[in-house]
Amino acid sequence: MNNVSELIKSHRSIRKYLDKEIEEDILMDILEAGRWAPSSSHLQAYHVIRIKDPEKRKVIAAYAGDQKYIESCKEFVIFCGDLSRIKHVCEEEDVKFDGAYLELFLIASIDASLVAQNVLTAAESHGLGGVYIGGIRNEIDKVDKLLQLPDFVVPLFGMCLGYPDQDPIKKPRLPMSIVYSEETYNEIDQDALDKYNDIVKSYYITRTKGKLNHNWSEYTSERLDGESRPHMLSYLKSKGFAIK
Amino acid sequence: MNNVSELIKSHRSIRKYLDKEIEEDILMDILEAGRWAPSSSHLQAYHVIRIKDPEKRKVIAAYAGDQKYIESCKEFVIFCGDLSRIKHVCEEEDVKFDGAYLELFLIASIDASLVAQNVLTAAESHGLGGVYIGGIRNEIDKVDKLLQLPDFVVPLFGMCLGYPDQDPIKKPRLPMSIVYSEETYNEIDQDALDKYNDIVKSYYITRTKGKLNHNWSEYTSERLDGESRPHMLSYLKSKGFAIK
Repeated sequence: MNNVSELIKSHRSIRKYLDKEIEEDILMDILEAGRWAPSSSHLQAYHVIRIKDPEKRKVIAAYAGDQKYIESCKEFVIFCGDLSRIKHVCEEEDVKFDGAYLELFLIASIDASLVAQNVLTAAESHGLGGVYIGGIRNEIDKVDKLLQLPDFVVPLFGMCLGYPDQDPIKKPRLPMSIVYSEETYNEIDQDALDKYNDIVKSYYITRTKGKLNHNWSEYTSERLDGESRPHMLSYLKSKGFAIK
Repeated sequence: MNNVSELIKSHRSIRKYLDKEIEEDILMDILEAGRWAPSSSHLQAYHVIRIKDPEKRKVIAAYAGDQKYIESCKEFVIFCGDLSRIKHVCEEEDVKFDGAYLELFLIASIDASLVAQNVLTAAESHGLGGVYIGGIRNEIDKVDKLLQLPDFVVPLFGMCLGYPDQDPIKKPRLPMSIVYSEETYNEIDQDALDKYNDIVKSYYITRTKGKLNHNWSEYTSERLDGESRPHMLSYLKSKGFAIK
């Protein structure tokens, strides 16, 4: 349709990288793209931390469920929700800061996500590939300590970046008839879901040469079986977000 | 640097639109760009609802604090966090679904945000402009009912789109020395913050011809003065997210 939407629609997560550094000016251009993301009430409630130290990367990779590409990628950044500096300016202006509302945590999460997606798109426009690392939330308190985060700053996800050394096929997405509707929410289109499940099954068989053959419903329900990072609430509370 | 990062870095919120429809194939291309966003564990925990009905737009504009451009924009879409279809597939697969974890609400919020930012970037690449509408959360329960959202589907923010009929100057962002650090979090750079405050003050004076003259610290602390959508937690609980 145009180059930008084609670029966006050609996204694949990239986890294998060429042994080629990302030029510093390109990295800065990419991070700058993040800085221009829209932000709720211009609060800019995020912070980005670049991790160069190989030892630190190794530790984070282990925390994130042994995702080795956190070590092997050329750049690794962590996106944090950050209300600490907003607290700072409130104190400067003698305004009582009550960061305990769930709403503020939500604002920070959305802000950081918009920044991150700008970073990824800009990276892909430079021929780079990347992958989000939500796995840092597996051991979020340990990642927090490693990054020396103050109250009201929480690591949300990481991102690995590098020049791709793989060319994976695109992972099929849920069809528009399921993720999109007009005027009101629509009940799930079971036929479309069944078809999508077949497509996902074929995708996994092709990608893994038959080793995996689950469909989306099977994969998703397996993923949802059991507690989902049950420590998140108590962690957030420990950082000042009372989530009231 | 390149066209895509320049496009991203040239973002301004656009709230005035030409009387020119968005072609249906362009709109679909833009929404498709959203569909290819990365998603945590491929859960795709979002749903997009396009609102065409002028009466409905009028009601939503009022809910969102009388933001008239929700009525005047050419397209208005609402991005929802959606765990309802994940609940559906869990039930299909006989897996107990416990969507009450804060982590799952976070996943849905991040997923929807990445989709939305792809949509905005693709829209801007087509010469369109837009603005996020977090204000729908002012009356989130009413928006919810209007859209007939089931349990585990929550409206997070809207987006107005149209061909720009304004050319605002870029709103200055916090400098890299404040939003970015290496290896660990950095304490706020007060000099950089003071300079940024001066820049923001000049920006508002220029943009409003002297009617507004606040700096970022003043604006931000005013915005944070008082309760921040205190209904959000009870609303989310009413939708099944126990936020445990």
